[in-house]
Amino acid sequence: MNSELTSIQMFGIKTPIIRAGDDVVQILETALEEACVEPFEGDIFVLAESAVATSENRVVELERITPGERALALGEEYELDPREMELVIRECDEIFGGVPGAALTITKGILAPNAGIDASNAPEGHVVLLPEDPRKSAENIRKRLEERYSCRLGVIVGDSRTQPLRLGCTGLALGVSGFVSVEDARGAFDIFGKPLHITHKAVADNLVSAAELLMGEGGERVPCVLIRGAPVKLIDESPEMPKISMEGCMYFGNVIKARGRKEENLKQGQNPASK
Amino acid sequence: MNSELTSIQMFGIKTPIIRAGDDVVQILETALEEACVEPFEGDIFVLAESAVATSENRVVELERITPGERALALGEEYELDPREMELVIRECDEIFGGVPGAALTITKGILAPNAGIDASNAPEGHVVLLPEDPRKSAENIRKRLEERYSCRLGVIVGDSRTQPLRLGCTGLALGVSGFVSVEDARGAFDIFGKPLHITHKAVADNLVSAAELLMGEGGERVPCVLIRGAPVKLIDESPEMPKISMEGCMYFGNVIKARGRKEENLKQGQNPASK
Repeated sequence: MNSELTSIQMFGIKTPIIRAGDDVVQILETALEEACVEPFEGDIFVLAESAVATSENRVVELERITPGERALALGEEYELDPREMELVIRECDEIFGGVPGAALTITKGILAPNAGIDASNAPEGHVVLLPEDPRKSAENIRKRLEERYSCRLGVIVGDSRTQPLRLGCTGLALGVSGFVSVEDARGAFDIFGKPLHITHKAVADNLVSAAELLMGEGGERVPCVLIRGAPVKLIDESPEMPKISMEGCMYFGNVIKARGRKEENLKQGQNPASK
Repeated sequence: MNSELTSIQMFGIKTPIIRAGDDVVQILETALEEACVEPFEGDIFVLAESAVATSENRVVELERITPGERALALGEEYELDPREMELVIRECDEIFGGVPGAALTITKGILAPNAGIDASNAPEGHVVLLPEDPRKSAENIRKRLEERYSCRLGVIVGDSRTQPLRLGCTGLALGVSGFVSVEDARGAFDIFGKPLHITHKAVADNLVSAAELLMGEGGERVPCVLIRGAPVKLIDESPEMPKISMEGCMYFGNVIKARGRKEENLKQGQNPASK
């Protein structure tokens, strides 16, 4: 193999079913040993949020939830179990619409259907909430793994999401620790030496998408993928995921503009209800 | 290494600068030989759309473009060079809004800023359009590579895109040949044996995101990544990318509903302009 060649390796780490209260780091250690994979300096662990959340006791029995009035109304609008809708309301920062089966929310600063609450990979009659603080979860797991393996590592708590107008799920980093999650390519140049137009690389999201190739969505029991050789910038921090504003977002800028016009119309007394 | 362990390997394939009219397959063959990488059955080639489009002579000198009235108006609205805006209008199926710097279009059936037209990695004063038919491009390249290496392969023509409310670019498959691009997980079960809620995996998009870890966006000159060991379903076809409707899209369903209400208001004569 050519020495100039860049390459990445990924290993799917199979584990027993992770249950509420389990120690996810201990489970990983055993699974890595069984797979004969010894973590190296710079390796990135991508962990499924459902496994992390379950280990953190974020599993809720729906029968214990009493939906309020808003949950009953919104549950009907979005065709969701009103008890699940109640949890969505409690968990999310904002609901701004949706489609049948999915209320579109901002939860823990990230766009998520149904506040990231999922019945898949939860025991019957239960749902799994997102980890309370995915960034903190990633940090805790990283520190313990780094201590155990005496090297610098990266950890991502990752999730699945759909793309606008596109069928199928891709990866999303909910919380990151140990490396730069979004790299700024400003100041870099293209192959002709011109400054780059596209300026940021969603490194952490791409790592999760890569890991999803081995994770699957279902009963594969591969809640962790170890990625080796990815050209990440290691840091001893847990960076916040940088975001763009609704106004600056190609997909939502328009919605905001439309809302603005509506509000302007209202102000000008053009709403029939105000006459 | 444990025999049950699933793993994927990725190799960044460095090439000389690809210029208009170059034979991309010939360039790849030379680059693979230099890197001492021999393609295997089931390997997936992810190719940067800009390299494919350039080889297909889809490079346009802006000076040769005369913007029409609509391009002048929209160029001002979206703060784009009116000549580039003219090309966006010619290339796209539909423009439905945008933000400064990015008109949001549907082009070749896919959501894309500025019809996928990019000045990065184009010679000074030029832009690169998307490949005329990315699926056909992927198919042609696959057939030639399969013949050359006497094995079944997959090819993706991939692009970068931003995510809603999220900073940084991830991967998107524009055209796919040789494997199932979106896998249907309906009928599969979660770790507790319950039917899965999330039902489709965007395999091709995830492969492009994985490849972007090695490609970079700029002068790295890695327009191709070879992915080995990805659990894809090989087929002797070039599947269309399945899509969801605007009405069924979590992100746009709302916009459509708002439009619907607006239209209803108009019908009911509640628009002041109609009075």
